[in-house]
Amino acid sequence: MKKLLTLLFLSVPALTGTAFAQSDYQADSVFIRKIFSNALSEGKSYEWLRYLTQQIGGRLSGSEGAAKAVTYTKSVMEAEHFDQVTLQNVMVPHWVRGAKEKARIVNGKQKIEVPIAALGGSIATPKGGITANVIEVKSFQQLRELGADKVKGKIVFFNRPMDATKINTFEAYAGAVEQRGSGASEAGKLGAVGAIVRSMTTRLDDFPHTGSLRYASGAPIIPAAAISTNAAELLSKTLKANPETQLYFEQNCETLPDVPSHNVIGELKGQRNPALYIVVGGHLDSWDFAQGAHDDGSGCVQSIEALRILKALNYTPNNTIRAVMFMNEENGVKGGIAYADSAKAKKETHIAAIESDRGGFTPLGFGIVGTSAQKAGIMRWRKLFSAFGIHELGPGGGGVDIGPLAPQGTVLLGLVPDSQRYFDYHHAANDKFEAVSKRELDLGAAAMAAMIYMIDKYGVE
Amino acid sequence: MKKLLTLLFLSVPALTGTAFAQSDYQADSVFIRKIFSNALSEGKSYEWLRYLTQQIGGRLSGSEGAAKAVTYTKSVMEAEHFDQVTLQNVMVPHWVRGAKEKARIVNGKQKIEVPIAALGGSIATPKGGITANVIEVKSFQQLRELGADKVKGKIVFFNRPMDATKINTFEAYAGAVEQRGSGASEAGKLGAVGAIVRSMTTRLDDFPHTGSLRYASGAPIIPAAAISTNAAELLSKTLKANPETQLYFEQNCETLPDVPSHNVIGELKGQRNPALYIVVGGHLDSWDFAQGAHDDGSGCVQSIEALRILKALNYTPNNTIRAVMFMNEENGVKGGIAYADSAKAKKETHIAAIESDRGGFTPLGFGIVGTSAQKAGIMRWRKLFSAFGIHELGPGGGGVDIGPLAPQGTVLLGLVPDSQRYFDYHHAANDKFEAVSKRELDLGAAAMAAMIYMIDKYGVE
Repeated sequence: MKKLLTLLFLSVPALTGTAFAQSDYQADSVFIRKIFSNALSEGKSYEWLRYLTQQIGGRLSGSEGAAKAVTYTKSVMEAEHFDQVTLQNVMVPHWVRGAKEKARIVNGKQKIEVPIAALGGSIATPKGGITANVIEVKSFQQLRELGADKVKGKIVFFNRPMDATKINTFEAYAGAVEQRGSGASEAGKLGAVGAIVRSMTTRLDDFPHTGSLRYASGAPIIPAAAISTNAAELLSKTLKANPETQLYFEQNCETLPDVPSHNVIGELKGQRNPALYIVVGGHLDSWDFAQGAHDDGSGCVQSIEALRILKALNYTPNNTIRAVMFMNEENGVKGGIAYADSAKAKKETHIAAIESDRGGFTPLGFGIVGTSAQKAGIMRWRKLFSAFGIHELGPGGGGVDIGPLAPQGTVLLGLVPDSQRYFDYHHAANDKFEAVSKRELDLGAAAMAAMIYMIDKYGVE
Repeated sequence: MKKLLTLLFLSVPALTGTAFAQSDYQADSVFIRKIFSNALSEGKSYEWLRYLTQQIGGRLSGSEGAAKAVTYTKSVMEAEHFDQVTLQNVMVPHWVRGAKEKARIVNGKQKIEVPIAALGGSIATPKGGITANVIEVKSFQQLRELGADKVKGKIVFFNRPMDATKINTFEAYAGAVEQRGSGASEAGKLGAVGAIVRSMTTRLDDFPHTGSLRYASGAPIIPAAAISTNAAELLSKTLKANPETQLYFEQNCETLPDVPSHNVIGELKGQRNPALYIVVGGHLDSWDFAQGAHDDGSGCVQSIEALRILKALNYTPNNTIRAVMFMNEENGVKGGIAYADSAKAKKETHIAAIESDRGGFTPLGFGIVGTSAQKAGIMRWRKLFSAFGIHELGPGGGGVDIGPLAPQGTVLLGLVPDSQRYFDYHHAANDKFEAVSKRELDLGAAAMAAMIYMIDKYGVE
């Protein structure tokens, strides 16, 4: 306790004194302005994203696209003459979708094709698919109350929409995504033969939005797929009119043995404390049938761009600054875990890690994971950031890939962009390059470069 | 002075006391939450916008589209059972584009077609078009320094880009748009035969972005067109390589006699002060070759939606609340002027007017035009709004259509959405329904409904 108090007493004057002397505020303000101007007038992230999405495309762990993305982002960071660019080995899951899924609502003689996509990690249906009666539920509780008698032999249709009235769409996602993550096992436990999950979006459209499921240990393993929201509405309506409505679906996905892959790490060497690290990153993998523009090509190119900007402005970092392209966020987080394990093993002290994985939209803030003093210290920089529209510095989530660094005492920061459009594209085929605005992307990269600069200059204690 | 001081002393306690007693804050907070929830779960503005943009399309003053838009929005407000829906007569300019423009860069034997669009209000070229040498300038000063000797008989190419480093894109627009508004006359004064203006966008793309010009009184009248930014880059590059490069362009536009049109006004009658008015509006006209989704179909449907929400929540207005679809913002503001003139003639006291004409993007604030006390009063509501991401209540622009109400002492408020994407679409053919996000549109409507509610309840003094 004594030590903690001493630290607190030391740290508070350090923050107010060092970080907020008027002269520094002005100097920081000028430098951050330069960061934003550079990003907006000479930014390269948009063209990198164009290549990553349009030339490479889907990048699911273990795929050819993922391998190409490793090579490409390495080459980009080398071309930018970062001090060092390395590949970090990581074994990743290798799930493949196989032939495109098929699904039909079978209402008596009427058969209507509907768009579905197998959930990541799902097993295939038996050859010829599954045709079964459908039971629609809005919650796991409702499912359990129905019980095995009413569920056995059927396809469970999880149809609770994301709550559109939440202002932050990630809250709405958090309130619905258990259906995708655990629905198959919950249904399997009661004897269901398949699970169909309403896509995680507040839009009504024809895109199935995939994403990972997790089979619960010991529960029967049944195939599961996401269905587009329009088709979910149709299925629900059809079931109301005819409870004997059946669904046919067939999918051919498969989990192959793990394969070697890589995190890609570029760095600018610290001139004062080369063994202290500040990391900025996104995840390089994406779902297979999407270009992964917002999720998370944006975060990757923004992270490289943040370093490019600092270098272009001739900033001399005190600490070593790394851009990390994490592999396998979508279905395993093996890259994030491998990175944190390696940092621990090599005794690389990570001061802070910043992640962009909420889309390449207008940045509005950062969510901070750290001690109260660390959060308060960073929140005192609010005025510097709010000049650029970045109002929301406060407690929040960091990021899935940087999460494994938390036990090492690393402060985590998640870039918080405007959330309104994210789930229009998330894990769906329309998450394309065209859905990204150059200015929004540039601003996010600048926001992260500015945060790196402040942390590099003043620390987080 | 004494009177002013008395007013100030009276008004400050009134604002703090009435508006911010803890119980009211809570009640207001709850009601505003209901407004946002209603918009996000039962919002109708997106479907109205779909019709306005996809079924009606371009709505330039005097066009068939504009007439259809009058009929349509009137029918929408009637279907919503507003207390009264009326058409207000207004004479509007009638400029027509005629046959599609043509343009070619002529570099020796090489001829390259480039996309242009006549500026609104421009004259046609002579039949067969104009082919002339081109002189590129970045500013009016540079043009004047060149002088008549170097300009006479040429096409002046205004190629100063919007400054991409401005965080607020409207600032960047303000810094460049004189080229479009006054470039033709500035060039004409020096004997130029035509003016070509780089499109007002920070993007590099193939869309010409049109907009109005104003011929200066007494200056020679020459034809003028916007050229896409990609073509502007190409023309500039070609001129550098070969200063004798010529441009050919041909356009067939024409100003016909003024025609009758309408503002469309729907209202909810005030129960306490029916003769006091709060107005919310957007402009119904758009450029001819665009669907006018962000500019300003969004503002129109959001205004109707704001009234729909208040009605749906059974809110009893103290003052009469009007949604106004202003006609002719783009090339004359005749609707805004007619509305204000009528208000004055009928002695309708307008407390406040709110306009949405900066696109259907995520709302971030309101810009206020009023006395210091009025601004301060509204700014004290910041906490209520910031819960919904609306951080920026402060001095700012109101709106072009509501501007004419200012001399009547009306407080003006302009909805301030995120500005990053606005000029990607502004006055260009890609300003389509698909460019609008339902959630963003809904949030803007809710923000305006919440502002109406607060003003209706507490006034602005």
